[in-house]
Amino acid sequence: MVSNLFMLYLGSMSYYIAVDVGGTQIRVASYQAEKLEPLRLIRRRTHSRENTPEETLKQAIKDAWPESKPVKAIGIASPGPIDLAAGTIIKAPNIPQWSHFPAVDFLEREFKVPVYLDNDANLAALGEWRYGAGKGHHDIVYITVSTGIGGGVIINDRLLHGVRGLAAELGHVTVDPNGPQCSCGQYGHLEAFSSGTAIARRAHERIQQGVNTELSKVAHPTARDVAEAAEKGDRLAMELLEDAGKHLGRAFADFLHIFNPSILILGGGVTLSGRYILEPIRNALSRYTMSPEYLEDLVITLAQLGDEPGLVGARVMAESATIG
Amino acid sequence: MVSNLFMLYLGSMSYYIAVDVGGTQIRVASYQAEKLEPLRLIRRRTHSRENTPEETLKQAIKDAWPESKPVKAIGIASPGPIDLAAGTIIKAPNIPQWSHFPAVDFLEREFKVPVYLDNDANLAALGEWRYGAGKGHHDIVYITVSTGIGGGVIINDRLLHGVRGLAAELGHVTVDPNGPQCSCGQYGHLEAFSSGTAIARRAHERIQQGVNTELSKVAHPTARDVAEAAEKGDRLAMELLEDAGKHLGRAFADFLHIFNPSILILGGGVTLSGRYILEPIRNALSRYTMSPEYLEDLVITLAQLGDEPGLVGARVMAESATIG
Repeated sequence: MVSNLFMLYLGSMSYYIAVDVGGTQIRVASYQAEKLEPLRLIRRRTHSRENTPEETLKQAIKDAWPESKPVKAIGIASPGPIDLAAGTIIKAPNIPQWSHFPAVDFLEREFKVPVYLDNDANLAALGEWRYGAGKGHHDIVYITVSTGIGGGVIINDRLLHGVRGLAAELGHVTVDPNGPQCSCGQYGHLEAFSSGTAIARRAHERIQQGVNTELSKVAHPTARDVAEAAEKGDRLAMELLEDAGKHLGRAFADFLHIFNPSILILGGGVTLSGRYILEPIRNALSRYTMSPEYLEDLVITLAQLGDEPGLVGARVMAESATIG
Repeated sequence: MVSNLFMLYLGSMSYYIAVDVGGTQIRVASYQAEKLEPLRLIRRRTHSRENTPEETLKQAIKDAWPESKPVKAIGIASPGPIDLAAGTIIKAPNIPQWSHFPAVDFLEREFKVPVYLDNDANLAALGEWRYGAGKGHHDIVYITVSTGIGGGVIINDRLLHGVRGLAAELGHVTVDPNGPQCSCGQYGHLEAFSSGTAIARRAHERIQQGVNTELSKVAHPTARDVAEAAEKGDRLAMELLEDAGKHLGRAFADFLHIFNPSILILGGGVTLSGRYILEPIRNALSRYTMSPEYLEDLVITLAQLGDEPGLVGARVMAESATIG
C-alpha cells in the first residue's frame, strides 16, 4: 500500500508535453499526469517569415512548458510517414523543409528529456483507445477520412507499427484496380475514391459534365460543400457521398476479415457528413462482410476526441512510454 | 544455475501432442520438448464407415500418445473458422458433422490435459516463425495458396487473432469488385482470382472458348496440370499463372501497406508452380507498393515446413502455451 501511494504521488508530480504537427498549425500542450485538461495549449502557424518550422516548434514547446515542473517526456504526432527506429519524419505534407527531419534527436538535444514520435493517425487511434470511443476495447480499427485517408490499428492493446512503423496505411489499399490515381501515385486506392479530395474532384468532374446541381454555384466545391448540399436534398451531392460511402464500407469489410476488431472508429471531417455517407458505409459493410460473426458484437462509431485526437494520442504515447 | 538446470530437466521430460485436421486426413504427432522430430506420427482417414470423425480423432491421439510419459498439452490445427474463446470449430470444410464442434471440451474431457485450438493457416505461420522460413523475424505475413487462400500474421512475435480469432483471412479481401464469385459467396476476393481452384476454373473456361492448349488433353485440368504445362511452354498455362500471380502481388502490396512486415512467406501447393507464378508476383509487388521503404529489407520466400506446417504450428502452440 505504502509503495502504491508513493507511486501515485510520484505519478501526479509528472508532466508531459504533447505536440501535433500540422501543415498549417503546430499545436503544443502540457499535461499533468492523471489530468485530462491541458495546463497550457499553444498554437503557432507552421510557416512564418521570421522562423523555420523547427524554430517555431522549439519556441512553442518552450511556451507550453510548465514552469519549474519535472517534464518526463515529449510526444509528437506527425502527418505522413515516419521512421520509427530512427526517430525521423520521412516526409511531412506541406512542410517541404522536413524531408527526413530527425525530430527526436533535435528535440532531445534541446530539452534533455525523452522524445517519442509517431504518425498522427496512429496516435489518434491511441488517443481514442485511452480516452475516446475505444475505451475498454482491445482490438480497434480507426480510420480518419479528411483530405486523405489514414488509419491506426490497435491489436491486443498495442499499436500496429510493423517493422519500420509504416503499417496501418489503410487509405492505401486497392478497392478497384481500374480506379483513379491516388495521391501516392498508385491507382484505385481507397483514398482515391473516398477522401475529401476525391469527393471534391468528383463533384468538379460532374459539374463539368453539365449535371444539374446546387454545387455549380460554388467555384470550387469542397467535400464540406458537398455534405451541405446533400443535407439540402441535392441529388448529385447525395450520389457522391453514397458512392464514397460504398467504397469505404467495402474496404471496411476487408478490414474486418483482416483484423476482426471489436470496434470501428470513424474520424476526420468527411465522416461528419452525416447519414448521407454513414448509411452507405453501414449498408456496404454488412453486404460485403463474408460471415455474420464479424458483425455480431461490432461497434461502429464516430471518433470522440474532436479536433485534437493527435495531440491526445501524443500525450498517451509519452505517458505510457515512461510509466513503470 | 541449479534452478535453470532443473527447469531444463523438467522441460525435457515434457511431451506434447499435435493434431492437424484435414478434409481427407487427420494427422497426429507426439513430440518430446526441445526435439524437432516427432516420436510417433499417425495418419487416419477423416471419414470411415466404422467411426465418426471425432471417434477417429480420439483413437488417433491414443495411438500417438507416448506410453507412460507426461503429456503437457494437445494443440489442434483446424481448417476453416474457429471460435477461439469457446474452443469450437465453427465449420470444417469437408467435415459437415463438425458444425460448431466443441473440440477443446471434447478432448479435455477425454484426455485430462489442456487443449489448444487454432486455424491451420495461423498455425502454419506460427510454425514457420518458430522453426521455418520466419526464424528471427518478428513481423511476418504468411500466405498459403492451395485449394483456397489462407493467411497467418505475426505481429511483434504474436499471432494476430482479432477479438474472436477470425482475423488474417487474407484470401478474403477484394482485389477487383467486378471479379468472379468466391467460395465465401462474395465477389472479387483474392481467393476467387488466384487459388488453385480459381486457376483450374479459368483453364476450363478458356478451353471451352476453344483456346489452343496442351491442357485440352486433360478432362479436368487442375492447377498442378497448369503448372506442368507452363513448364513445357504452353502459352495458355503461362498466361493463367501470370494472371494469378499478378493479383497475388497486387494484394501483397496492400498487405505491406497494412502490416509493414519484414518477411512475406508463401506456402501451399500453388506457390510451388515455380517462376511462372513467382515472377509475376514479384513484379506486381514492386509495381504496386507505394513507397520503396516497404521493400528495402523485405524478404520474400517460400515456406520451409513442407507438407505439415499446421502440425508443427499446433506443436508450437501447445508448447508455448504451457511454458513458464
